[in-house]
Parts: sequence; C-alpha cells; structure tokens
Amino acid sequence: MEKTTVLEFLQQNLQSVEQVLTQLKVLSEPKGLYEPVSYILDSKGKRLRPQLTLAAADAFSGDRDVAVQVGTAMEVFHIFTLVHDDIMDKAETRRGRTTIHTKWDEATAILVGDYLMGKAGEMLLALPDQQLRSGLERFSLTVRELCEGQIRDMEFETSSNVSMDAYLQMIDQKTSALIKTSLILGGLTGNADKESLQHLDHIGFHMGRAFQIQDDLLDLTADSDDWGKPVGGDLMSGKKAYLLLEALRVETTTGNSYFHRVAENGGLASTEVDKAKHLLDEMGVLSSTQNAVRHHSNEALRLAKLLPESLGRLTIESLIEKMAVRSH
Amino acid sequence: MEKTTVLEFLQQNLQSVEQVLTQLKVLSEPKGLYEPVSYILDSKGKRLRPQLTLAAADAFSGDRDVAVQVGTAMEVFHIFTLVHDDIMDKAETRRGRTTIHTKWDEATAILVGDYLMGKAGEMLLALPDQQLRSGLERFSLTVRELCEGQIRDMEFETSSNVSMDAYLQMIDQKTSALIKTSLILGGLTGNADKESLQHLDHIGFHMGRAFQIQDDLLDLTADSDDWGKPVGGDLMSGKKAYLLLEALRVETTTGNSYFHRVAENGGLASTEVDKAKHLLDEMGVLSSTQNAVRHHSNEALRLAKLLPESLGRLTIESLIEKMAVRSH
Repeated sequence: MEKTTVLEFLQQNLQSVEQVLTQLKVLSEPKGLYEPVSYILDSKGKRLRPQLTLAAADAFSGDRDVAVQVGTAMEVFHIFTLVHDDIMDKAETRRGRTTIHTKWDEATAILVGDYLMGKAGEMLLALPDQQLRSGLERFSLTVRELCEGQIRDMEFETSSNVSMDAYLQMIDQKTSALIKTSLILGGLTGNADKESLQHLDHIGFHMGRAFQIQDDLLDLTADSDDWGKPVGGDLMSGKKAYLLLEALRVETTTGNSYFHRVAENGGLASTEVDKAKHLLDEMGVLSSTQNAVRHHSNEALRLAKLLPESLGRLTIESLIEKMAVRSH
Repeated sequence: MEKTTVLEFLQQNLQSVEQVLTQLKVLSEPKGLYEPVSYILDSKGKRLRPQLTLAAADAFSGDRDVAVQVGTAMEVFHIFTLVHDDIMDKAETRRGRTTIHTKWDEATAILVGDYLMGKAGEMLLALPDQQLRSGLERFSLTVRELCEGQIRDMEFETSSNVSMDAYLQMIDQKTSALIKTSLILGGLTGNADKESLQHLDHIGFHMGRAFQIQDDLLDLTADSDDWGKPVGGDLMSGKKAYLLLEALRVETTTGNSYFHRVAENGGLASTEVDKAKHLLDEMGVLSSTQNAVRHHSNEALRLAKLLPESLGRLTIESLIEKMAVRSH
C-alpha cells in the first residue's frame, strides 16, 4: 500500500474493513440467524476501532493484513455489544435503523450477539502464534470490562446516588476498554514492547474519556439535525451522565437544588431543556465539561506524539483531534 | 493422582471441576453481575462435558491440570447456553432452580451469559502454545454450531413441516457439537493426532445423538418424580421432537392422522398423554426410538473401544453406558 496522506490512509483502511465485513455477510442457512447478522453488518459506521488498530499497527510496522482482521474483530465485537445493549435498553432504533430485537425478536437478537461475539474471538486467530496468547488475554479482559461497565450503567438508572468517580469508572469500562484494546492489538501485530503497549493503553484511556464526555456534552449541545436523537434527551430522562453529575457536584457547593430535583424526578420536561442548558452554562458546567474533553484529548495527543514517527501516528493524532471537535 | 476405578476417577474429576467453578464465584463489584454469576455456577450438575474432557485427556496422557481448566471451560460455556436459552424459552425454572432472568431480570441474564461465554474462552488459554490455536478454532466452530442449532430449534416451533433430517441436524448442532468438542479438547491436551481427534469427534457425535434422543424418549417415559418436568410435556406442547416426528413419519405410511392432528393443534391435553403413549407403543415408535438410542450408544461404544487402553477409555465407555440406560 502506498502511503500518502492521513485521509487516504483512513479511506484505504475503511475499504479494507468493509471488505472483511462483507465477507462475514454469509447468506447461508439458517436464514433466521444469518439474515439479521448480515443486516447488522450492513449498518454504516466510522469504524473507529479498526482505524485505531490499523493506525497503531502502522506505527509499529505491523502486518497490515493481520491488523485488518484483528481491527475488524474489534468492530464485530463492538457491534455485538450494541446489539445486546439495545435489547437491554429497549431501543427501537440506532442511528436511524431499526434494532434487531425490534425488526426480528429478542431471542434472535440475543443469538446474533452471541454469534458475533464468537466471531470476534475467531477473527483474533489471525494473530500469529507469537502474539496470539497476549491478544486473547487482552480480549478476555475486555469482555469482562464491557460486561461490568454495562451492568454498572444499568444500575445507575435506578440508583439515587451516583458519584462522578463511579460514573467515570463505568465509562472507562464501557467505552475506553475497547478503544484501548483496539490500539493495543494494533501494537501487538508490530510486536510492540511492553512499554509501548502501556503507552497505547494510556492513549486509549484518554481517548475513551474524551469521546464519552464529548458524547454526553453533545447530547445537550448538538445540532438537532445532525444528532439523530432528541437534543437534551439525557436530561429529559434524568440519565446520570457527565453534565447532570457535574451539575449536582456544583450544586452541593452552591446550595442550589434545581438539578437535584431533576435527578429526584427522574428527568425534566422537554420545555425545560433550554432553561436547564442556560443554567448549566451559568453554573460553569458546560465549560468545565468542555475542559474535561480538552484535557483528555490533549493528554491523548501528548502521548500519541511519543509514538514512533509514522503515518499511523499522524492518523491517531488526527482521530483524537476530530473526536474533540466533532459536533455529532 | 492415583488411578483406581472409574467411579473414583469420576469423583476426583468432579471435585477438581467444582473447585475451579468455586474459584470463578468471585463476589466482587459490581454485585449486579457477580451475584447472579455465582448463583448460576452454584447449580449442581453431572458436569458431563468436563468429565469427557478429563477422560479423553487421560486416554491420551494429557496434562491433567490443563484438562481440568479446559473441561471446566466447556461446562462454563454449557451454562452460558442454558442461561441464554432459558431467556429465549421464557423458562422460569431449570432443574428446580429459578432461572436468572426470573430471579433478576432479562438484561442481567443476557450479560451473565455474555460474561460466561467470555470466561469460557479465557479458560481455554490454559492450553499450551502448541495446542492453543487448534483448541480455539474448535471452540469458535462450536459457538457457531450452537447458535445455528438454537435458531433452528426456535424456528421449528413455528414451522409446520419439520423433517426428521432437519431435526437431527439441529440436535447435532445443539447437543453433539459441545460433547464432541469436550472430547476433542481432552485429546488435544494429550497431543492426540488428527486421526484420533477425528475418532473422538465421531464418539461425541453418537453420544450426543444417543443423549438427545434418550432425552426426548424420557420426556414421555420417565418417572414423574425423577424427571422434574411434566411427563409428556413435549407432546402437550406439540414440540417437534423425536417421538412426534417419528410418529408423523409412521402415519405417512399407515395413513393414520392422530399425531398429524396433534402437530396441527400445537399439542394435546394432559388427559390425552396416556392414550398417545399407548398409540406410540402400538405404532412401534417407542421401540424404534429405543433402537435409535441403542444404535448410537453402541456405535459410540464400539469407537470408544478403539481408544488407547486407559482408565480414561473405560470412563468414556461407562459414561456412554450410563447415558443409554438413564431414567432421568
């Protein structure tokens, strides 16, 4: 592959990943399994996780073909978590497409998830013997973290007292863990040493934090046209995400109670969203949240600059920058 | 370990397996995940799959410690399938214990299953480098087979036309696949050659068939006290299991229609069970079903006798014999 610009690299990667995903769309029997599997693999996405694997692989001169397989495994695993999460959250659509348990039924969605999880593990067998065990150990750890993170996320829904620390731990498990692993598997394909893998781990940690806090912020500040969900949805449903938890923290020092009431009432009316946004701005919550995103993306960038000079490193830097300024 | 009798071997194995399962009952945070995980690992069982792994490992002089881990992984995987199957079947109890989705909720049961599946994969890492890839390839195949088998099983519920061949294919995937893999992983720990692994595969195939057809037969012929389910339950719910499919096959040649009506009506009343049983006996269905069980257990036995002479081989033979004569 001729290396040119970050943009071209990202495009070539996307093409390779989509090609592997297309190969997974086997339309054999039983159709009850493989039709929904193909349907869900058809959903478009930025394929952030394989992009990270491929970029890290490039930074450590790893085998590209292996990285394509392993990176796509991370995407397949990500899709598995979305399929099962959507059942648990009773979500009818995701990014405009009907969810599997809605289009088919819950039993089918459970099985499609199970199948994809198994497939993700299988795809990791593309790793050469030398890196297979480390890769699978990392994968196993990630499965555990994702399961723990998801149960915590669900527990928060009914818990009246969620601390910011507990919330950050949850997003570390639910979002950062897979981002870290995607980077680390890329490094593994290039036989990166322990210190470098640790390095990739830290980059992924900060990327995951920046990504999720930005996501929480966008829930209130995104353009409604781009967002694909009702703006302010988290506040309306009283979801204990970053903004609300930060607001509760500030209120504890100021003695105000608006957001404590929002939390107690399990949300607010859509007509209240503008007022809440205004209040969050006045309280400094919007700016401190933006600062948190900036802090984590800056840390990720700082660490990325220590990676071996390469198109892969530039790509990781570019992905971090895009993440911090994205509007949807 | 001192080798003495099959019975002692089975008991020692059971102890080792229970010990590993106990170690998995970590009661750490989040409790929302680990309490139900511990609850389900607490359910007692014959641990047939690890017994097969340990017996095959013994037959090929495999490392016992590795075989204990890998065999228990098969049990953990088996438990995962039960947890998810119980959600899909809306089963409130299993062997007298409340199912996870009933005692907790569906979301929890989905996650507990996901966690256990990941854990099963992780436990396979006990395999030494030399056998790791083969073991994991086999495991991946098994995941796929189980998912396909379960979707077929569910499709049969609403399908008016299930052939005996389709049914057998389903039970091969849903029951035999994991039995085969349990044996093969045991063989792998002893570096069994390709031909021997093929051999174990065939033994597992016939064991699975014998086990499942016997299960279908017992559904009608078991002592109600031992069975733990209503005797005749499959016929009452019109389930397309071996007896009903065999009855339909016979009726096609005799021109009778009693069981065709049962199938069309989606089952029969509990007051009809005795009559149906009598009819099945008269039609020769009970005896041909017993013959099928005997055929497959005899085949399994015949093949088992070709394994290296060992306590493990005797144990496999004993497990096959017990299976064919079990009454619950």
